[in-house]
Parts: sequence; structure tokens; C-alpha cells
Amino acid sequence: MPLNEHWYTEYYPKTKSALSMTIKEKLLDEQTPYQRIEIYETEYFGTLMVIDGCVMLTDRDNFIYHEMLTHPAIFTHDNPKRILIIGGGDCGTLKEVLKHEDVEEVWQVEIDERVTRIAERFFPELCSHNQDKRAHFYFGDGIKWVADAEPESYDIIIIDSTDPVGPAEGLFSKPFYQQCYKALRKNGIMVQQSESPLFHLDLIKSMRNAMKESGFSDVLTLNFPQCTYPSGWWSATMGGKGNRLTHIRLQEIVDKSFETHFYNLGIHQASTAYPEFFRKSLA
Amino acid sequence: MPLNEHWYTEYYPKTKSALSMTIKEKLLDEQTPYQRIEIYETEYFGTLMVIDGCVMLTDRDNFIYHEMLTHPAIFTHDNPKRILIIGGGDCGTLKEVLKHEDVEEVWQVEIDERVTRIAERFFPELCSHNQDKRAHFYFGDGIKWVADAEPESYDIIIIDSTDPVGPAEGLFSKPFYQQCYKALRKNGIMVQQSESPLFHLDLIKSMRNAMKESGFSDVLTLNFPQCTYPSGWWSATMGGKGNRLTHIRLQEIVDKSFETHFYNLGIHQASTAYPEFFRKSLA
Repeated sequence: MPLNEHWYTEYYPKTKSALSMTIKEKLLDEQTPYQRIEIYETEYFGTLMVIDGCVMLTDRDNFIYHEMLTHPAIFTHDNPKRILIIGGGDCGTLKEVLKHEDVEEVWQVEIDERVTRIAERFFPELCSHNQDKRAHFYFGDGIKWVADAEPESYDIIIIDSTDPVGPAEGLFSKPFYQQCYKALRKNGIMVQQSESPLFHLDLIKSMRNAMKESGFSDVLTLNFPQCTYPSGWWSATMGGKGNRLTHIRLQEIVDKSFETHFYNLGIHQASTAYPEFFRKSLA
Repeated sequence: MPLNEHWYTEYYPKTKSALSMTIKEKLLDEQTPYQRIEIYETEYFGTLMVIDGCVMLTDRDNFIYHEMLTHPAIFTHDNPKRILIIGGGDCGTLKEVLKHEDVEEVWQVEIDERVTRIAERFFPELCSHNQDKRAHFYFGDGIKWVADAEPESYDIIIIDSTDPVGPAEGLFSKPFYQQCYKALRKNGIMVQQSESPLFHLDLIKSMRNAMKESGFSDVLTLNFPQCTYPSGWWSATMGGKGNRLTHIRLQEIVDKSFETHFYNLGIHQASTAYPEFFRKSLA
């Protein structure tokens, strides 16, 4: 069975490997001012969004990533009212944030409006809460948005971006983290997708160090499976402005009023366990 | 970059997807009486063993699987002296078992002697403890070995097999579990690789039910990443003969005298957290 035009293949240059999915149909191929967006209907994974040759999300497995980028940070914060999402154009993170009734206002700042418009068309279930009165959209530069933000104006900043090349590169840097720190209220939390613990350990270490050097008093990396990303194993890294990130709202997680498919209290705690090679590399 | 003869590709029929690795060289291709074994030198993952078209192990990531199939079960048992490995021909599981100084005797029962002979040649680091006086090898039918075993003669039975098709099919069945139960001493533990939590949930459920119906008083599934297996996320399922599998030798894990690269106390506990979809499907 050769890989032919019925397959979508993402090549991983770093690990000289590739992941392929059989496709029924290519639904869209669009070059925006920022990037190339492709949409496919796959045989098993449902609808697939690809940006600049990298799998962004599929119907089948995006719930893990979106839940893990959202709920651990929110349930670690004592009183999350005002939340900023940088990137996140597919609106899957926004949908999870809006499940929290105590959140009063969410801003989604995505550089490429086309990502959101295309998600509305091809991933309607992720965009089902975009009309929520608490949700606000701005399409423009997230780095500038954070730099211009009123100091101490957000409780949580979620950085839901593509890989640290291309338009997202500046989001993985100390100057950006310093601006995030400034924009966060006391006991605020930033959380950022941080690639694969197995393949990108050096990146995670440099992100952690840059967060600490930017003033964050506590840094914690979360691990979770993500089957259509390189290595099938992904992470998010949190920085806390004055708070301890292992101190979580235990009982409220158990009593949460909304449904999740991956996240729960046991998974939250489990995601913070560091494998031995990871622990040693940080020591 | 087309996938050509410089790539090894495993097709996953169930999920209509594929994982590919670039190869420098094919080192061996042998049809044994039981299966086809291929060995490749890859660009990133080191040496790769493939059996009947399925990735068995690579240098790069086999440590996770072998550690997770071994140490949780051994550290859950109060006094593990006599251990049986069914399958495990590459000797990676055996090597991890032998790290436990309190283990007195290990039998590895592999149906295909060629797997072990080929591992000795191409994965010497996994076979580095094969000369340990506690290690015993038998090449033959594991199902018959367990059926013929003296009742209550093993503390732990580790089933480290290929997928539940072909020679390993009988290892995923209630009659086999009943024989394992009989061969285990009181408070004994069986542990078996149980495929992907995301892709093979039905198999895991049927294994768990078959273990319970075979007399095992407690059943616990462990989750861990495994980047070269389908979905990059794998599991092992334990059955306990009279014991509680969440009762572990905490302090001995912390004080263990040997090195691991993935396993530690936090990881042991984290691996037993069930994602919400998994928990609901068992309820």
C-alpha cells in the first residue's frame, strides 16, 4: 500500500519521521497573508486542519490538547475572571475556557482571522460558543496586544500557538514572557503549549528558564498524549506570578459542572509527574 | 519528499494511518517458523525491530515500554521472588526485572528463539544481563508453559507479546488468564501490554473483564507514552490475585538502588489515572 494522493503526510524533519492519514477529500487549500491553511476530510480522524505543513487539529483527538491547555491553568487559579488567549484561532481553547462559569471575560487574539473563519466553517463544534457574550475577538499581533495591555489586567494568559517557527516564533521568548508577566494580575498564570517532552526537551528547558528569568515564581510542565502531533506526546508549561502551581482547587475540579472527555482531577495531577529523564535534565 | 525506499512505514489498518521512519540500511529480513523479523538502522530512532510489519522496538524509545511493563507490577508486589515473562524475546523486560535485587528467579518463555538471537546481535544493551544466574530461558509455547506450571508457583507473570493477532492471539483470552491465575501465588500479579487507550479501548475493556471473570480481585490499567506505537500512547493492564493494586511499596520506589529513564514514584502513580472518556467507558 504506497502512500499516494489518498494520504496526507506530515514530515518531521528533526526526527526524520512522518505521520500519515488517509484522506477522502481535500476540502480547502488557502494561502493567507501569514500561512498556508489546508483542510482535509480523513478516513478515521474526521476533519483535519494543517497549517504550513503541520497538523494543527483533527476532530478525533483535539479534545485532549484543548482541555489540557485550559482546565489545569484555570483550576490552579483561585479566582479567574479575565482571560487572554493568544493564538487559538480554531476556537477550541476558547470553548473550553467558556465552560467555566466564573470566568467573566475572554479575549482571543489571533493574528490570522482566516484561521477562525475557516474553523467556523469546518469545525463548527469548536466554534459553538463564539456568540457567548463573554467572548471577545481581536485579529492582530498577539505580541503587540500583550505589550500594550494594561498592567495587571489579566488573570490567565493562554498561548495556543503553532510551533516556534514562522509567525509564532516571538511567542517563545523572554521579552514576550516579560510582557505577559506585566499584564498578569498577582497570582496570575501564563500557560503555553510546549511541544514534545521526548523530542523537544531543550525547547521546554529554555522556555522554563525564560519564564523564571521573567519573574515567574513557579514553573510547571504538564504532559499529555496527543496522537497526531510529533511523538504522540505533548506538553504545556505554566508560569505562576507569585502562586504555587501545585496548589489547585481540588474540590471544584471534582464538582465541576461541565463535561470533559480527557481532563479530571486524577489526570490534572498525573499530568504534572515528570518522567525520570525529564526530572534529571532539569536538575 | 516522497516516502521511498529510504523509509520504513508501518500502516495502521484500523485507523487508516501510518508512521514512517527514515532508514539508513536494512540489516536483516528473516522469515522464522512463526513470523517475519526485520531489522533496520534508522536515522533518528537507532536500531528498529519489526515483526510481521509492526514496529516492536527502537533504541530511542523502548525504555518507556519496558520500564512500565515491569516496575509498576514489581513494586506493587510485597515480596516478588519468582517471575515469569511470556514473550519478551528482545530481553528488554528481562533486563528491567533483573534490576530488582530481591527477585530470585526469572523465566523468559518466548515462542520464537530467533527473536532473542537477533536481539542479542542487534540490541546488545537489552541483552546485557542475559548471563545473570537468576535468568532462565525456554523457547516454546507460553500458553502451554503456564498451563503446565505448578499451581501457585509464580509471584508475577508479565505478558510481553505482540498484538492480539497471529501467534499472540491466545494470550489475550480468558482461558489463558485462568491458567495465569492458577499459576500465581496468593497476592500474585499478572501484567500484560494492552495496546492504545485511544485506539483499542474495546480490547482493554474485554481484557479487564476477562481478568475479573478469571478470578482476579483487582484490575488496574497503566497509561504511558510510546512514540513508535499506534497513537503514541500505550497501556498495560494488571490483575491482582487477592491484593489491591493501588497499594504499592512507596518508600522502596523512592529508595530504589537502580537507574531508570522513565519510571519513578510520580510516574507510577500518574500512569494509573484514567482519562475521563476511559473512566466513563468502564463505568
